[in-house]
Amino acid sequence: MKEKVLNYIKANRLIDYGDKIVVGLSGGPDSVCLLHILCSLRDDLNITIYTAHVNHMIRGEEAFRDEEYSKKLAESLGVEHFNLRVKVEEFAKENKMTSEEAGRFIRYKFFDEVLNKVGANKIALAHNMNDNAETILMNLIRGTGTLGLVGIPNKRDGKYIRPIMCLTRDEIEEYCKVNGLNPQIDSTNRESIYTRNKVRLELIPYIKENFNSNIIESLNRLSEIIKYEEEFLQGFVDDIINSHYKDKRFSISIFNKQHVAIKRRIIRRIIEIVIGKISGIEQKHIDECIELIHKAETGKYLVLPHNIVCKIEYDNFMIDVKSDEITEYEYKINIPGVTYIPELNSKIYTNVLENLNNIKYNTFIKYFDYDKIGNDIVVRSRRQGDYIVLSGIRGKKKLKDFFIDKKVPRDERQRIPLVAKGSEVVWIIGMRDNCLYKVSSETKRILEIRFERGAENE
Amino acid sequence: MKEKVLNYIKANRLIDYGDKIVVGLSGGPDSVCLLHILCSLRDDLNITIYTAHVNHMIRGEEAFRDEEYSKKLAESLGVEHFNLRVKVEEFAKENKMTSEEAGRFIRYKFFDEVLNKVGANKIALAHNMNDNAETILMNLIRGTGTLGLVGIPNKRDGKYIRPIMCLTRDEIEEYCKVNGLNPQIDSTNRESIYTRNKVRLELIPYIKENFNSNIIESLNRLSEIIKYEEEFLQGFVDDIINSHYKDKRFSISIFNKQHVAIKRRIIRRIIEIVIGKISGIEQKHIDECIELIHKAETGKYLVLPHNIVCKIEYDNFMIDVKSDEITEYEYKINIPGVTYIPELNSKIYTNVLENLNNIKYNTFIKYFDYDKIGNDIVVRSRRQGDYIVLSGIRGKKKLKDFFIDKKVPRDERQRIPLVAKGSEVVWIIGMRDNCLYKVSSETKRILEIRFERGAENE
Repeated sequence: MKEKVLNYIKANRLIDYGDKIVVGLSGGPDSVCLLHILCSLRDDLNITIYTAHVNHMIRGEEAFRDEEYSKKLAESLGVEHFNLRVKVEEFAKENKMTSEEAGRFIRYKFFDEVLNKVGANKIALAHNMNDNAETILMNLIRGTGTLGLVGIPNKRDGKYIRPIMCLTRDEIEEYCKVNGLNPQIDSTNRESIYTRNKVRLELIPYIKENFNSNIIESLNRLSEIIKYEEEFLQGFVDDIINSHYKDKRFSISIFNKQHVAIKRRIIRRIIEIVIGKISGIEQKHIDECIELIHKAETGKYLVLPHNIVCKIEYDNFMIDVKSDEITEYEYKINIPGVTYIPELNSKIYTNVLENLNNIKYNTFIKYFDYDKIGNDIVVRSRRQGDYIVLSGIRGKKKLKDFFIDKKVPRDERQRIPLVAKGSEVVWIIGMRDNCLYKVSSETKRILEIRFERGAENE
Repeated sequence: MKEKVLNYIKANRLIDYGDKIVVGLSGGPDSVCLLHILCSLRDDLNITIYTAHVNHMIRGEEAFRDEEYSKKLAESLGVEHFNLRVKVEEFAKENKMTSEEAGRFIRYKFFDEVLNKVGANKIALAHNMNDNAETILMNLIRGTGTLGLVGIPNKRDGKYIRPIMCLTRDEIEEYCKVNGLNPQIDSTNRESIYTRNKVRLELIPYIKENFNSNIIESLNRLSEIIKYEEEFLQGFVDDIINSHYKDKRFSISIFNKQHVAIKRRIIRRIIEIVIGKISGIEQKHIDECIELIHKAETGKYLVLPHNIVCKIEYDNFMIDVKSDEITEYEYKINIPGVTYIPELNSKIYTNVLENLNNIKYNTFIKYFDYDKIGNDIVVRSRRQGDYIVLSGIRGKKKLKDFFIDKKVPRDERQRIPLVAKGSEVVWIIGMRDNCLYKVSSETKRILEIRFERGAENE
């Protein structure tokens, strides 16, 4: 088993020699097996292991039993352990999240904090082959594109790794048994209430019994094939976008020369660039855009969900967010935490980091010097007198002038959310940030601000 | 409903103005609905409809009831009708096929015969959205690559079309009811015996009830997306193969520059070219080839199923069929019908056609002048004294010299099957055919011969 995981780690380059790895430890069989195997590979891979456990304060006594077990296990393996207790349900209520969403948010945030505190560079999560097969089946059943068939990635952002995605649940339980690990069982897992549990406890056993006893392996093989095809197609489309997408515009003649599969991906990718996500956009919307661009009649346009407009402009088409009248709004940003903006149906997520080892590049995530920016910031619509300080320019620049320079149409300006301190704009979200608050060599604490549109639960 | 089918036909270019279409009519709801809708579109599309029914002589009285119903329905719609009675189970036994396989073979053959007789150019089949969803789920459950998720194609070879693939089974039943068509129900369909029926009668209803009542539509949408991505990827890979695959060899340096998803497809495509199919080859075999080519050590090789060898030769790699000692064999070819060659685990399929309107291009299918070639032909291994007559050469050419000219290694020669009349070779399968039997302007009846390797039931 250890050998199998080691081969999987090498084949997928999950761990580099000398990595410092925080293992998310719930106390259940998966994370216990993951921790035990990684510990047994410490010498082979020259890695340092840390563990992080979150007590969600939901399942009463059981939660404290898991907390205690995790602490002791880490100790017995000679691993530095970190523990957090959070009342997840209260947090969820305060931040208008489901308790599942809140739990995930808190866990990932805590793992990040531990990573920063100990100077680690990776976070190991304990998803297995069954989890992956369940995800694929759930996506398939709910109705997905090819991306949903990719399943759970075994690494993400060069930071999150899933080294036991090559093991089935049976193998993991066997491993725990053979090694006398005695992991804790989460009693809520055994009830057929939620979709995943229904897939796990009813659908997959039915398929195993009636059709294919190797369904878990089959689905994982499929996901492995599709993962690489997705990667190739995304790279292929990104190359096209990088060459031909400028100022929110794309050449109609070049677009119309592409294969329909590529046309669809170009449209999806542009929408993703414009609003930061693709959910809520259906295939028929994409195909309507393709039809519109095929006809190429200047001035014609289409309105898609999330107020996205696809418009023909002479030789180009443009996809952008439609400028409806938006009432003025202002909300204090919770740090760290989540801030909901009902006017935009969007959310602001913030996080405090100690270093920039693992930042994401994206026009909807920015990093600031937390000590300079302070706690007193809001997200709001623009107002008269707004200004920003930009690098390369002496003094302040009026926000209005910025929009004029950037040729942002008047009716679009109201839709662009701002992070601000009084009249000073800190971040014109999706466009530009204030140079006074940038992270520098003197920065001690970093504030990560992430904006997400259409943040309804999906 | 009629409107929906018409839009689907137009969007997918299934029917051209003036087409002559043979409708496969079983008497069940699907084919009855298909026939009725196509008849109602006769004026709009300027098409002529014919119907063909096969009585499989399996379900006793019920089969004759269906035969009678189909005949009367065609009559009432003013359609020329053709009927065939075949004892499918006897045919299956004689030809070592399953009765399902035999039924399909006989049906398609009869549809083809009717098409040739009446001078039609298309055959319409009555698969629906549910059939497609079932196929996708079955493929997924059995373990498939992306191709299995494409599902049932709505057209194939410019000849077979499936115009009601846009309707669900419920819509079809509703249509039959509203139009008082009273289709016949096949009683075997209602039993949960076979995989497809189990998927249809148990799995899909379970998914509908518990997860997604629109599962049929969801799976069809997925299939539509993947269909185009497959088409793009296949075209992309075919372009690479056409540029870089010569004399069974492919440049290692060009191969190693490709994305792994493309490498996998190149290997699969070459295997398909070499043996005419890809089934039986697993992902791990493909990945082993990729690894071998990555290392590029001259002389190293791998043996895959079906005796396929992947070998490194300096700057190129080569994929070919390994030359084991094969005992001599000879089998009379059944015309029309199937001939099994146990030594190669292969089959020869033959068919008599009246025109070449709908031929397939493939090195494993050839068309001959049936009246010149006659019934007395065999498939066999090579023998001393074998010769062939080739265009551009006066007189006979010894088979041995042909192999020497083509640089076919001595040990491979024994593996190449021949279609022969005495010592005269009619077709060196996969390589070259005798010019004396080619189809010409004087040909009255055409003999189609198709060779298929690894013809075990799949």
